[in-house]
Amino acid sequence: MRKVFRDVVTIDEARNLLFNHFTPKRAVETVPLHLAVGRVLAKDVYALTDVPPFDRATMDGYAVRAEDTFTAEEDNPVILKVTGVIEAGKKPEIEVNRGEAAEIATGAMMPKGANAVVMVEYTRKRRDEIEVFKPVSPGENVMYAGSDIMAGELIAREGSKLTHREIGVMAACGIKEVEVYRKPRVAVISTGNELVSPGEKLVEGKIYDVNSYSLAAAVEENGGEAILIGIARDDEAEMRRMIDKALREADIVMTSGSTSAGAGDVMYRILDEFNPGVIVHGIAIKPGKPAIIAVSDSKPIFGLPGYPTSAMTVFEVMVAPVIREMAGISESEMTRLKARLALKVFSAEGRREFLPVNVVEGAEGYSAYPVSGSYSGAVTAFAFTDGFVEIPENVVMLEEGEEVEIRLFSQLRPADLMIIGSHCVGVDILLSILREKKPYMSKVINVGSTGGILAVKRGEADIAGTHLLDESGVYNEPIIRKYGLRNVLLVKGYLREQGLIVARGNPKRIRGFEDLLREDVTFINRNRGSGTRILTDMYLKEVAEKRGVSFQELIASIKGYTVEAKTHTSVAVAVASGKADVGVGIKSVAVNYGLDFIPLRSEEYDFLIRKGRMEKEAVRDFLDCLTSEEFASRLQKVDGLEVYDRTGEVVEIE
Amino acid sequence: MRKVFRDVVTIDEARNLLFNHFTPKRAVETVPLHLAVGRVLAKDVYALTDVPPFDRATMDGYAVRAEDTFTAEEDNPVILKVTGVIEAGKKPEIEVNRGEAAEIATGAMMPKGANAVVMVEYTRKRRDEIEVFKPVSPGENVMYAGSDIMAGELIAREGSKLTHREIGVMAACGIKEVEVYRKPRVAVISTGNELVSPGEKLVEGKIYDVNSYSLAAAVEENGGEAILIGIARDDEAEMRRMIDKALREADIVMTSGSTSAGAGDVMYRILDEFNPGVIVHGIAIKPGKPAIIAVSDSKPIFGLPGYPTSAMTVFEVMVAPVIREMAGISESEMTRLKARLALKVFSAEGRREFLPVNVVEGAEGYSAYPVSGSYSGAVTAFAFTDGFVEIPENVVMLEEGEEVEIRLFSQLRPADLMIIGSHCVGVDILLSILREKKPYMSKVINVGSTGGILAVKRGEADIAGTHLLDESGVYNEPIIRKYGLRNVLLVKGYLREQGLIVARGNPKRIRGFEDLLREDVTFINRNRGSGTRILTDMYLKEVAEKRGVSFQELIASIKGYTVEAKTHTSVAVAVASGKADVGVGIKSVAVNYGLDFIPLRSEEYDFLIRKGRMEKEAVRDFLDCLTSEEFASRLQKVDGLEVYDRTGEVVEIE
Repeated sequence: MRKVFRDVVTIDEARNLLFNHFTPKRAVETVPLHLAVGRVLAKDVYALTDVPPFDRATMDGYAVRAEDTFTAEEDNPVILKVTGVIEAGKKPEIEVNRGEAAEIATGAMMPKGANAVVMVEYTRKRRDEIEVFKPVSPGENVMYAGSDIMAGELIAREGSKLTHREIGVMAACGIKEVEVYRKPRVAVISTGNELVSPGEKLVEGKIYDVNSYSLAAAVEENGGEAILIGIARDDEAEMRRMIDKALREADIVMTSGSTSAGAGDVMYRILDEFNPGVIVHGIAIKPGKPAIIAVSDSKPIFGLPGYPTSAMTVFEVMVAPVIREMAGISESEMTRLKARLALKVFSAEGRREFLPVNVVEGAEGYSAYPVSGSYSGAVTAFAFTDGFVEIPENVVMLEEGEEVEIRLFSQLRPADLMIIGSHCVGVDILLSILREKKPYMSKVINVGSTGGILAVKRGEADIAGTHLLDESGVYNEPIIRKYGLRNVLLVKGYLREQGLIVARGNPKRIRGFEDLLREDVTFINRNRGSGTRILTDMYLKEVAEKRGVSFQELIASIKGYTVEAKTHTSVAVAVASGKADVGVGIKSVAVNYGLDFIPLRSEEYDFLIRKGRMEKEAVRDFLDCLTSEEFASRLQKVDGLEVYDRTGEVVEIE
Repeated sequence: MRKVFRDVVTIDEARNLLFNHFTPKRAVETVPLHLAVGRVLAKDVYALTDVPPFDRATMDGYAVRAEDTFTAEEDNPVILKVTGVIEAGKKPEIEVNRGEAAEIATGAMMPKGANAVVMVEYTRKRRDEIEVFKPVSPGENVMYAGSDIMAGELIAREGSKLTHREIGVMAACGIKEVEVYRKPRVAVISTGNELVSPGEKLVEGKIYDVNSYSLAAAVEENGGEAILIGIARDDEAEMRRMIDKALREADIVMTSGSTSAGAGDVMYRILDEFNPGVIVHGIAIKPGKPAIIAVSDSKPIFGLPGYPTSAMTVFEVMVAPVIREMAGISESEMTRLKARLALKVFSAEGRREFLPVNVVEGAEGYSAYPVSGSYSGAVTAFAFTDGFVEIPENVVMLEEGEEVEIRLFSQLRPADLMIIGSHCVGVDILLSILREKKPYMSKVINVGSTGGILAVKRGEADIAGTHLLDESGVYNEPIIRKYGLRNVLLVKGYLREQGLIVARGNPKRIRGFEDLLREDVTFINRNRGSGTRILTDMYLKEVAEKRGVSFQELIASIKGYTVEAKTHTSVAVAVASGKADVGVGIKSVAVNYGLDFIPLRSEEYDFLIRKGRMEKEAVRDFLDCLTSEEFASRLQKVDGLEVYDRTGEVVEIE
């Protein structure tokens, strides 16, 4: 039998073992005040001077003795002798005696003798005298020395993340540089013969290095400074060299890959040569079990698994807290959010599972969608993951609708506009017109027409693009009713021509769906639930009927029927690259890729919206774009897409 | 009469005027992928390759033809001939035929002929053959080319702020650099003869420049790059030179100061020399009315008022949206929050008011406390301002308890621990022990004992430090009951010695409160509501009684009675610097500043906590620190503070 992880420990045990051998320490550096925004203060800061440093006029006017003005009235002014002018920034040379006044500017230092300022609006100047029409009380329009900040006051506390507020107050106190925590330096190494760096040529068998980049970005997001060391081949000497280099340059070292038993325990052997060496080998966590923690002379080395999602999970659970601690960043920066689970989930007993989820805001709070593909090395698991749900070791199942707490990877910004549904080039054009108008943050999830309708039903989508043909020959409306949606609006969109996309010149001489059954023809299908897939299946059912075979039999003999592309563009790329001979898609995409197009029919691409969502400015602006002349003219340039007399028409579905 | 703002315009008019002469444009720059975190994507990014780029094994094991394994059983294995080994990163040289298998590593490319991988755990190796104990279906443990990302798919959308997620996906597609929006460059100039830069010596009449630093920090917070040009004296030629320099280096220019009519319209005259020159002169906004907007050859110049809060308000309302637009940052980044107004507020009719508020989380949601001092040039208004409430032009009053929407200056992070109440060195020690334990984010607002009790009553404080003596001679408990608090705990803290703080050697020979009445003695008082102030007034009432005068008469003859320091430290600094001869405070502070101390009495400094707050980990940890040996020993080193037999004792108040 092969080596297994014999000493798998729980997350808490792993932490305790780590902190037995390593104490996170914070280093301090001094930065000029104007570069300190976003940094974490390393020391309490006290005011060394009063603010303001002297009694100061807060208005333009005349510095006076308040007692002299007590009898002033609108129609019976007091007359005072003006003995001088006091400008801001200068020490007054004069003193104000009884019956006297000194012209003074906002911010200027009060002269001796004066205890108030009469606003210029309540005076009239006559040669070297002024008339005062309104009395002032002692202290009026004067800001006393130290009344804003007194010398000795604590003005900013250790551990604060500096914003323009603290920086302004420190500037007022004359502080020109501050001591902040130095960002902990974290070295990142990827390992594996199969890895090449982005930008390099990809020869067969190789893949691009993901972890160096995603982990470095995550280090920065957690307040650290990432140092990219590079890719180590599966060669012990090279790995050791790079780890030695990393230990010289960084406070924390992270490797990814080469940790599983299958890799022959290379990383374990290398890391165990340090002193004290490996202290954790395997953590009861899913994904991420084959993780290693080692220490070399009180610097921690984390050996993360190679799969991107596993590496990121171990990073978040084990490494990020150490970086934040060293950076002086408070725990509470990690945002938590309550949501309901959108699907039932099974979990592994005996391991703590970190389930990646996508969060969508609905009518009744947040929904969490488990992200699939996270354990198979898929990197798109990243793109849709907002955070994760921690499932304890003893829980084997979570019910649909159960409330869960999500730890967000980064601050969740609710999108201004959430579009879930069918993918269409027209939507991309609408969004680009919308973005030129206002910098809305839109999130688009392409899940096909059916997925869009369900997302609107659950209140998660603002808008769903849909093009579903009913047997009755009517688009969208009957199917929306069938799904039981109420209080929604169907806004008619535009027409788009669907057809068969084939290579330029149609070398395989494809004429229709019958040709998909040919031995020499490879098809590329669309994902289930998409309008195009439903259209495809309708045509194929006709073929099956004509031939007198079942639909199942028919599709079993189509090469490539089970290969599902998620967008029209992906279909075109598959045909253009020769991976497939034919697919179903819209004309514009075929033309874009220089492919031939065999028209099938024009379909109605519409937008489904809950009535309540019309309150959102972004939704109204989106619909304005739909009926704009700019959209009509930009759509005209796209083959097979066009607005028509129903564009913008609103069908209410009660 | 002097010049007034004749053409004051509303905020919307100001925006329209600005955008008639200036169109914000976004510049694009290319950055390496590993430096792109936090930047805003300038173009939609499409995948140029499939991910994975080939069919890939997702497990260590043997690549087989699934059909060959269909009859495999635990006790009746299928035997296959092993024809070679396929490593990750290499193109397989072999093909798998019927009855054959190839050893394959996770991530390696599938060989021709094979369509599934048997996990190594379900096999046994015997020389050049393997036994397979479990069947696999076609595609099992294989990740197909393009199944994660298909070439042609949109992987990141223009306008996205890049996180480790998008960066990981782009790396997977081999993208090594990305086009992002260049941060708009914003030049910052302060004007005024009275300004000196922090770090320089402050001669009489001068103050430190706040706006350069707070505005530069705010520029960075809004996605811009700040360029500090410096301080321009009130000299037209110098101002013009600096603005010319700023226009050469930046996309947007900001000045502050010299905008009001009182400054002789200097800034107006200078800015009007550009082409087209001044387009807005005065905005109906409070604070910030005397703001100028000019344009020079399609670059905007904002002339902000000089008062820090006014400058920041005009920045937030007029400048920040332009910076964010040019940086490609979505509007929704500006966080909004609903809160109830803690006090009644009057507003100016005809001007839109931006009321600075401090936000505190209470039992029933958020409370907004208007920040005082914001219109008088106080910079502490900054330190306590979390954001502002926009009050429309036609509203003259908002009721206490009214719901308002707050625009937050920066992301509001609720503190882990909110301590509102009396200031004490002992609390600082407790917090420093607590921070060494865990990196809690604590917020401390020193408002005196009474303010602390009220904050606990309203649910805004987790903990209030209090030392209020009742006429009965009992500390804290009777007064808390008098304020009607229920379901609270009074945790007994420590003893602290209060006394008179006088200069070293007591040159004025002060013996007691009687001496405060002397002509040659200047007193420094504490703020109303503080326990020390109440103690002071109790002693002074005794003096008044003895002398047969009223309390009011007595205090009228004390020099400095109306000058209120907010902390013990401030009192000590005032005495040490000679601004006052005597104040009331705790011994530790006096000793710290090398001052003499005349003991009055030992008081009981306790902590008031709502019962419900004991659920918070930070509160429990704080109380653990109170009874810890470390606290006792560190307190012992502070003169006049000591734990005693009641420290940690809990008094329930039902």
